[in-house]
Amino acid sequence: MKTGKNTIVIDSKIGDGTQIWHFCNIYGSKIGRNVKIGSYVEIQNKTNIGDDSIISSHSFICSLVDIGKNVFIGHSVMTVNDINPPSFKRTGSKSEWKETKICDNAVIGSGCVVFPVRIGINSVVGAGSVVTEDVPDNTKVAGSPAKIIGKV
Amino acid sequence: MKTGKNTIVIDSKIGDGTQIWHFCNIYGSKIGRNVKIGSYVEIQNKTNIGDDSIISSHSFICSLVDIGKNVFIGHSVMTVNDINPPSFKRTGSKSEWKETKICDNAVIGSGCVVFPVRIGINSVVGAGSVVTEDVPDNTKVAGSPAKIIGKV
Amino acid sequence: MKTGKNTIVIDSKIGDGTQIWHFCNIYGSKIGRNVKIGSYVEIQNKTNIGDDSIISSHSFICSLVDIGKNVFIGHSVMTVNDINPPSFKRTGSKSEWKETKICDNAVIGSGCVVFPVRIGINSVVGAGSVVTEDVPDNTKVAGSPAKIIGKV
Repeated sequence: MKTGKNTIVIDSKIGDGTQIWHFCNIYGSKIGRNVKIGSYVEIQNKTNIGDDSIISSHSFICSLVDIGKNVFIGHSVMTVNDINPPSFKRTGSKSEWKETKICDNAVIGSGCVVFPVRIGINSVVGAGSVVTEDVPDNTKVAGSPAKIIGKV
Repeated sequence: MKTGKNTIVIDSKIGDGTQIWHFCNIYGSKIGRNVKIGSYVEIQNKTNIGDDSIISSHSFICSLVDIGKNVFIGHSVMTVNDINPPSFKRTGSKSEWKETKICDNAVIGSGCVVFPVRIGINSVVGAGSVVTEDVPDNTKVAGSPAKIIGKV
Repeated sequence: MKTGKNTIVIDSKIGDGTQIWHFCNIYGSKIGRNVKIGSYVEIQNKTNIGDDSIISSHSFICSLVDIGKNVFIGHSVMTVNDINPPSFKRTGSKSEWKETKICDNAVIGSGCVVFPVRIGINSVVGAGSVVTEDVPDNTKVAGSPAKIIGKV
């Protein structure tokens, strides 16, 4: 693991060859090999990031997000686990939080918001999209809310 | 007040029990009790944040934003006070800047842009929305631009 | 040049009177005089920023972005150079990356995503827009995707 300046990594398992840039805040995550993580990225606990993936600067990966191998996450991508926030504060439990699965080889453009959905294998989400529904495998989506615009 | 690493807080009044995480930049703000502020949050001067509110990571709270009690602000929420920027640079005065009021118990999802409006009591703004008009009390809005989708 | 706390500036040329705030990450950029750069801004190499421009907090200026003079970039504006990411990882070459030109006096509101386009002289992009096509000079656009809404 190679880390930049002022980066915080605690309680995490980080694979060989992974690079984490500056001003990151990572806790309780399981991150594979040869992953690249840009600056100002926060990754919460109960997350997985597969080998060879890229998480670009300013992104937020919340608890219960499972990212496959060779995935590309653009800049300032916000994942969501609580669709009725703040449920933990209201109920004292995290049981309402939902999982997100971003499958192998998926690409998510910059500036997207990703609700707790499954984004399929090889699928592509256009930059600036708001993803509120599952994306099938090998499918391109874009827009707010994101709609299918073609196949990969 | 409990602060994380590399956080800057100046000229601010911070209530008991408030937690501020890492890499924050807060100046000239009046922040209540038991507030939680995530990492990478900038809060400008001439702002108020009420007791028990949450400001999530990567958000920007600009001057003239007044946030009530028990409000939830998601991640990467950008507030706006200047609808014809950069008016201060152009005119030498901040007189064109407008106020935003986010009322008690309001919820603003991640990735929203909030123009200088009033967001009503108990109201909910869906993640990824661009809020260009006032939101009545007890109302759900979503989209770009945000439209009313129901009552709370 | 005046820099804030914890800011990283390497291999860059910075003009007189330019102010860079906290937690920035700037490398290989040519930045003019009297520029203001907010906190949490990343500016990559092969970029130009003209005199008297403002780059607001949380924004990302990627390689091959050329910003003119007296330009205003709002908060959390994400520029894009790769419309089929991650092309560098896939091909080993940056030849698929495209240029963005943001012309003199242009204004880009907060929360925008800007594809590799030309944004014309004096033109204005509304906050929260996704700019996928060139914007003519003296033109206002807004929306996702951004459409022409008037003249300046």
